[in-house]
Amino acid sequence: MSPAIRDALRLPTGPVDLTAIETDAAPGFDGGKSDGQAALAEMGAELADLQERLWAERTVGSERRVLLVLQGMDTSGKGGVLRHTIGLVDPQGVRITSFKAPTEEEKQHDFLWRIEKALPGAGYIGVFDRSHYEDVLIARVRNFADADELQRRYGAINDFEARLADEGFSVVKCMLHISADEQKARLAERLANPEKHWKYNPGDLDERALWPAYRDAYEIALEHTNTEVAPWHVVPSDKKWFRNLAVGDLLLETLRGLDLEWPPADFDVAAETERLAEETPVQ
Amino acid sequence: MSPAIRDALRLPTGPVDLTAIETDAAPGFDGGKSDGQAALAEMGAELADLQERLWAERTVGSERRVLLVLQGMDTSGKGGVLRHTIGLVDPQGVRITSFKAPTEEEKQHDFLWRIEKALPGAGYIGVFDRSHYEDVLIARVRNFADADELQRRYGAINDFEARLADEGFSVVKCMLHISADEQKARLAERLANPEKHWKYNPGDLDERALWPAYRDAYEIALEHTNTEVAPWHVVPSDKKWFRNLAVGDLLLETLRGLDLEWPPADFDVAAETERLAEETPVQ
Repeated sequence: MSPAIRDALRLPTGPVDLTAIETDAAPGFDGGKSDGQAALAEMGAELADLQERLWAERTVGSERRVLLVLQGMDTSGKGGVLRHTIGLVDPQGVRITSFKAPTEEEKQHDFLWRIEKALPGAGYIGVFDRSHYEDVLIARVRNFADADELQRRYGAINDFEARLADEGFSVVKCMLHISADEQKARLAERLANPEKHWKYNPGDLDERALWPAYRDAYEIALEHTNTEVAPWHVVPSDKKWFRNLAVGDLLLETLRGLDLEWPPADFDVAAETERLAEETPVQ
Repeated sequence: MSPAIRDALRLPTGPVDLTAIETDAAPGFDGGKSDGQAALAEMGAELADLQERLWAERTVGSERRVLLVLQGMDTSGKGGVLRHTIGLVDPQGVRITSFKAPTEEEKQHDFLWRIEKALPGAGYIGVFDRSHYEDVLIARVRNFADADELQRRYGAINDFEARLADEGFSVVKCMLHISADEQKARLAERLANPEKHWKYNPGDLDERALWPAYRDAYEIALEHTNTEVAPWHVVPSDKKWFRNLAVGDLLLETLRGLDLEWPPADFDVAAETERLAEETPVQ
């Protein structure tokens, strides 16, 4: 089942037309909601095992780590992925960073400055809830950067991610793809439920009015940064269960691909075993 | 069930004798391993709900947050608590810091300098895997600090934690209490299982030889820092299932005690609902 999802979500190189990619599909998965939820739960044990191996490797000097980049329009479910999918692995080995509008200090630096500071250490699964891609998305839509600067940034992003790959990062990029109708339904739900009012911001509707401009910005960004070492995956996300499963699958396949082994002992196991057995009794 | 565990684990004020506190008991809980595991799993939904309320509150300016301090001898199960108990809540709202031997830079500062930097932001559940208490534990056992300095540190810790309480922190301190025999069994298990060799370090046996000195250091530290605003709990931890359940219970009771409400809307709900319903269609 798994490679089928990954292969189905892998964005082909070349121009991108998001309107041609279904938002409510479940590509590569042959089942419904309850099957998908069960499949995600079943992944838990293997994900946890592989993550612990990744974590263990760092104790013997491995530089390997995973960086999962989550992008998507408001309500596309970045938070849901964090809760339901990333929540399956040991929180000790996870580093989540949510990027908001840059602070005054961050604005004094290149757009990648704050990104560098948030990179996960060796052995970690790092997750970016929004990322450096905002600097070619909202920056394009809201004209925070001109055409030359945007062009520079696509190149800078590709150079940056290639460097990460060289350093031992597995970079997994996901665009959570919802329809405008689905967003409307989710915003309406937030408004209708007092327990969800805190998630709503009147500015959300102003951004929503720019939907076509955001779609353009995504299409251009995806095309320009869909590299071999850091490819994009477009995750149909109208179905929350498929979104969670698909990201779990991408993470699982990434970890599987690392052929993670338990590190060998860097001490004399027999000697230590004897030392422990023959210790002066502790009381 | 729950308050019974918390009450049973709460360390009374006054001199501390750890040898008088059982390590393999399950105080306040009337059941065995499978009951305990089920009880922890059942906590999940309420823990997640309360954590989300804490998280939501920060969007309207609340300064409240939780700081869970985990201390204990090697193999006492700090990592297990992170995986099994902290793993129950949304990783987005959790900030875990594992304190190792201080770096050269950290040594140039007061012992609380690196602790300050790791404090959780508003709305977070912060977890310290080891903490500023190492600076009165290993520091005492290994003579990294003299008697006057240790005395100063107990006071500094109490002042620091009182300030945190004033700032909106709920400080929950747990000493994971295992027997020397249980530690020996766990070390032997690590040596016997190649998948666990990475967790073993020959230095562990050198520390183990100092068990009585560590016990003394714990007893003194617990006595000196067992304050009303930041009390200590001694968690019998020979039974892993009880340890995980007990910390879950302490966390749950702490969150319950905050009377967390969903924040009210800071916008006109009816107006926004109408605005969404009457928007220019997005396509």
